[in-house]
Amino acid sequence: MRKTFIFICCLFLWKMAAAQELLSPDKNLQLQFSITDNGKPTYQLTYKGKAVIKPSHLGLELKADASFIDSFEVAGSKASTYDETWEPVWGEVKEIRNQYNELEVNLHQLSTDRTLIVRFRLFNDGLGFRYEFPQQKHLAYFVIKEERTEFALAGDHKAFWLPGDYDTQEYSTVTSNLSEVRGKMKDAITPNASQAPFSPTGVQTPLMMKSKDGLYINIHEAALIEYSALSLELDDKNFVLKSVLTPDAIGDKGYLQAPCKSPWRTVIVSDKAGDILTSKLVYNLNEPPKYADAASWIKPVKYVGVWWEMITGKSTWAYTDIENVQLGVTDFSKTKPNGKHGANTAHVKEYIDFAAENGFDAVLVEGWNQGWEDWFGKTKDYVFDFITPYPDFDVQELHRYAASKGIKIIMHHETSSSVRNYERFMDTAYQFMVNNGYNAVKSGYVGNIIPRGEHHYGQWLVNHYLYAITKAAEYHIMVDAHESVHMTGLSRTYPNLIGQESARGTEYEAFGGNNPDHTTILPFTRLIGGPMDYTPGIFEMNVSAYNPDNSSKVNSTLARQLALYVTMYSPLQMAADFPETYRKHMDAFQFIKDVAIDWEDTKVLEAEPGDYITIARKAKGKNNWFIGSTCDENGRVSKINFDYLDAGWKYIATIYSDAKDAHYAKNPKAYTIKKMVVTNKTVLSLPCAPGGGYAISVMEADDDAIKALKK
Amino acid sequence: MRKTFIFICCLFLWKMAAAQELLSPDKNLQLQFSITDNGKPTYQLTYKGKAVIKPSHLGLELKADASFIDSFEVAGSKASTYDETWEPVWGEVKEIRNQYNELEVNLHQLSTDRTLIVRFRLFNDGLGFRYEFPQQKHLAYFVIKEERTEFALAGDHKAFWLPGDYDTQEYSTVTSNLSEVRGKMKDAITPNASQAPFSPTGVQTPLMMKSKDGLYINIHEAALIEYSALSLELDDKNFVLKSVLTPDAIGDKGYLQAPCKSPWRTVIVSDKAGDILTSKLVYNLNEPPKYADAASWIKPVKYVGVWWEMITGKSTWAYTDIENVQLGVTDFSKTKPNGKHGANTAHVKEYIDFAAENGFDAVLVEGWNQGWEDWFGKTKDYVFDFITPYPDFDVQELHRYAASKGIKIIMHHETSSSVRNYERFMDTAYQFMVNNGYNAVKSGYVGNIIPRGEHHYGQWLVNHYLYAITKAAEYHIMVDAHESVHMTGLSRTYPNLIGQESARGTEYEAFGGNNPDHTTILPFTRLIGGPMDYTPGIFEMNVSAYNPDNSSKVNSTLARQLALYVTMYSPLQMAADFPETYRKHMDAFQFIKDVAIDWEDTKVLEAEPGDYITIARKAKGKNNWFIGSTCDENGRVSKINFDYLDAGWKYIATIYSDAKDAHYAKNPKAYTIKKMVVTNKTVLSLPCAPGGGYAISVMEADDDAIKALKK
Repeated sequence: MRKTFIFICCLFLWKMAAAQELLSPDKNLQLQFSITDNGKPTYQLTYKGKAVIKPSHLGLELKADASFIDSFEVAGSKASTYDETWEPVWGEVKEIRNQYNELEVNLHQLSTDRTLIVRFRLFNDGLGFRYEFPQQKHLAYFVIKEERTEFALAGDHKAFWLPGDYDTQEYSTVTSNLSEVRGKMKDAITPNASQAPFSPTGVQTPLMMKSKDGLYINIHEAALIEYSALSLELDDKNFVLKSVLTPDAIGDKGYLQAPCKSPWRTVIVSDKAGDILTSKLVYNLNEPPKYADAASWIKPVKYVGVWWEMITGKSTWAYTDIENVQLGVTDFSKTKPNGKHGANTAHVKEYIDFAAENGFDAVLVEGWNQGWEDWFGKTKDYVFDFITPYPDFDVQELHRYAASKGIKIIMHHETSSSVRNYERFMDTAYQFMVNNGYNAVKSGYVGNIIPRGEHHYGQWLVNHYLYAITKAAEYHIMVDAHESVHMTGLSRTYPNLIGQESARGTEYEAFGGNNPDHTTILPFTRLIGGPMDYTPGIFEMNVSAYNPDNSSKVNSTLARQLALYVTMYSPLQMAADFPETYRKHMDAFQFIKDVAIDWEDTKVLEAEPGDYITIARKAKGKNNWFIGSTCDENGRVSKINFDYLDAGWKYIATIYSDAKDAHYAKNPKAYTIKKMVVTNKTVLSLPCAPGGGYAISVMEADDDAIKALKK
Repeated sequence: MRKTFIFICCLFLWKMAAAQELLSPDKNLQLQFSITDNGKPTYQLTYKGKAVIKPSHLGLELKADASFIDSFEVAGSKASTYDETWEPVWGEVKEIRNQYNELEVNLHQLSTDRTLIVRFRLFNDGLGFRYEFPQQKHLAYFVIKEERTEFALAGDHKAFWLPGDYDTQEYSTVTSNLSEVRGKMKDAITPNASQAPFSPTGVQTPLMMKSKDGLYINIHEAALIEYSALSLELDDKNFVLKSVLTPDAIGDKGYLQAPCKSPWRTVIVSDKAGDILTSKLVYNLNEPPKYADAASWIKPVKYVGVWWEMITGKSTWAYTDIENVQLGVTDFSKTKPNGKHGANTAHVKEYIDFAAENGFDAVLVEGWNQGWEDWFGKTKDYVFDFITPYPDFDVQELHRYAASKGIKIIMHHETSSSVRNYERFMDTAYQFMVNNGYNAVKSGYVGNIIPRGEHHYGQWLVNHYLYAITKAAEYHIMVDAHESVHMTGLSRTYPNLIGQESARGTEYEAFGGNNPDHTTILPFTRLIGGPMDYTPGIFEMNVSAYNPDNSSKVNSTLARQLALYVTMYSPLQMAADFPETYRKHMDAFQFIKDVAIDWEDTKVLEAEPGDYITIARKAKGKNNWFIGSTCDENGRVSKINFDYLDAGWKYIATIYSDAKDAHYAKNPKAYTIKKMVVTNKTVLSLPCAPGGGYAISVMEADDDAIKALKK
């Protein structure tokens, strides 16, 4: 991490006055803190004079002790400034600036003689604040009944929201005014393998909103460690969002021991939508990396995999059709194979070949290990052992074969949410990976959590997910966790967490389809806090072409699928469709082969949540750029410039766009490919089909390449 | 295991008739099984013509599926006989005979087309039966809502009962008629660190009873594996006991996958109280040992320890008086020692010296590791790491010192019921033991279970306790588990489980005292299913002599404390008091030095539950016998013979008995020691004080020894 400018000024301002003020470095954001009616800590936030958060209370309700809600006085406060630049191991940009003004408010609770600290950090693009519980006489161990943080909004904002739920984020995002949340909740709660909606006006974070006066506001949390995950409940009379933590099996919401601190609650604000997308506020509130040698073993991964065929139903994860197996008891060598088992040695070799031929890094294989016959819906404790393959998956041979081709296989640890079981096998499973050439694992938590009564987003599981990540680091293993708790920037501290699903991903295109505007929303919501393993790149939109029993349609044009490699940032990118399908469209597939997965710089060219996103990114260490654009069901004309290219240079742009008559539902596979020379003066207008978009690779070119093009 | 006589006869009796009958090998016990009103499986048991269990229903109530309660018909049945003798690795006898007649009843449930098997085994001393769920089409995964096993008793028996509870067995046993249970329940439920009484007429197993017509009846379970522990609820109108399983955090009582089986439900019966004490029925229903080489690393242990001083309050487990520590954060080398930390190197060496001087095997040390400052009552997750000592406990030096003296140190793993934490550290902790010369561990589960909502006796913890035992075996480690689920004979299969507390032990003598008749009951209750680490041998009955702030009295005479080494069978025996106290009574301490801890043969000389027990045991591989007698608050005269001694041999008996004026409360330490020659013709009358008893060592003697005695 290169530190360019570091100012740390500590000003001791012992104010007994109620009001405290903090400005962002550029002074656009103003935070005010005060103690109001009966000693309640209260804050408010304005942006360029407009209210973002109206006066809102802070605090926590405790289970057995007096709560941290009122009876406070300001004992003292401390203001400071911070300005540092750091380099992430992987990311959308090479350097990240961490610049904020901080206010630490020491609160003394008169009724209990306890101390609570609220620390505010005001960045140019938003606010972070957290609670701190210092070591002190009258506070040691305490149990949270509920956190009492409020976000009083300035109006009936447009919101992009998921139903609040303790176990799943896989709902389709609903776009509506806040006043409509209650009425739309019932239909929004579609079935899931594990779900626990908690309120008729509950919503998840990251929560994206747009005010009627054009402010973009995003509420989330950062550095979720040893605490229960945050959701929000809307008071839809007053438009106040209230914090709701995730309960454990007995209804408690957190077990803390002073000294400790809560995660940061974050409010990202701008009058430009693109600023939400490029904000690094959540990462900046996390601690620097814990691993000294991260870059030596953590590297972005482009992969293909034995996966989509099971998702579409063409193949099975399971080896046989027995409905009831017991590990160590069922002799799979004697069972009748169902003939549809995707993860077999020969088939995996086909993927390894395809990956090697096309410059990919790895092949994911799901369904390689015993136990899939009854992995789902049985609340089964000893469901997998993570090391015993099916008879038709030859671990050693595939290790040898993959290594000979310079390809890695990505391990798969579906846990079926049997978390104690996973922890019992974790060291053995990770060592098995090391012994057999695997350095990355996709983990999953499908189904209700075991220990029963716990939720995916409770403190118990938050602790487990981090345990899995830190233990993986001991083995130099990268982790891609599906169905895990929302991301909160932990990848800064633990950069081997290279992604999660934790939202409705491409698999749902095979489960009935995603909304055509889905990917115009996700970067404003899901991607705040960390990258998503969205697994795009579907070229065959008609799932019944693979499985006649599945009439699902992928609600996207092919060109937009290419765009997603740019608009859905991730250091872990999958080309999810089948090699044989790609081979029918190698011209389009070329973009996926070319696109970088680690970036030096990022520019948001166009952005409106729910409508369209166009992003340009520069490949790290190269003079190549990649542009992607995605839009909603209306279609549009995208207008972009190239003023970020180096002046005086020429580039060859290859433009993969929707054909004139393309449409996500009626004609998704109609695309055109055009090459042209561009410079930093070029402007383009590109039509995008409904549910469509385009992708452009911009490679620096010398005169010979340009001559060849013109021929 | 030496098999002497093995008859296995399989008689296929395809009876569509409702009634099935089974007799014990000696024909005293008769079991009848039939299908009654609306297809309910029903059984009854008589002993020598007297009703033991009146017609009682069987079955299980399931959560989401049709229950196994009625609509049954007998599809077939199979009778067989078994007779085998096996040798335990350690025990009360050298050889155990396993002889029974078995009836396997195949039940077909008409409403569901499912199969349920009930297997009955009738021994000469009782009945065992269990449910079996074979692999079948209409049953795979199922959740138990409640087991519906009944034991309809023949009358208002006298019972020795503990309040039914999902988390503790540490109540004082109540002696009353069954009709009085309800009225006495409230006072019986005394405070405990973790408790969950479940019914005004709930009782625990083993449940000991005596009918008005002189039958001794004991109800319990055997082979509790992957199932929730059994309790009973009394219908005190009809004197029917009904099974109550332990719920998990969400109220479910078991998660099963066919093929599987329940534990055995056991009813031990005799008209002689001693037969209950010597019954091996529970062990015989368990599987043979899983370890091929058990005897090479599993050996009985006689130990002393740094323990009683903390229990009495003279010393502390904790190193400092800080109320709030964090492992890895608190620097104990910088904290102020409280000056009362028992587990310090010099003090432990004193114990090692004492152990070596007196022929003991080991020294237990509690409080050696960081974390004790807040080990209790905080529901703390990361409470111990099981490997980091306090600054004043030198692991390596004590390893060296103990080894130089031929002594082992017994490891202590108090988990504070933070079970996930224990499992995370378990391999590391066991390896630490191996690296540092420890081969036995005392584990503890004080406080409410974490994951919160689970209970000590639920399936989740039953699974965990066995996990700890089997993993310990990988490291050749013996386990003594405190606060664990009741024992059910698992030590046959897993002989490294050498004991548990799992009842109100000697520590309660320092917490207010145990009832003076406590040890006349425990062998009829707690010891059915496995040995207890009762930790007797207290010589100073006035706890205030050690800690002026603790006015507790040990409600026992000194002579009776010696007797407990015989009457409270355990392969793990502690001399619990302080070396300096023993040094004041080396004459009495001689018995503890001499007493064997592994036995070839056992005879019950006198027994009446709640009143008195006198037992004689022969040391394994020697011609020495040891006799112990314990009695209740009334005192008595014990009359015993020696007809089990070898004919024609002479022995020197050393008799440690209550002095004439001894009394457990008023004059507990008054004892006399007398030596005399005995043969198999000797009879003795020995007065026992209230709450008293006696111990006798009987060593074969040659003529010279006898001459020396007479001088």
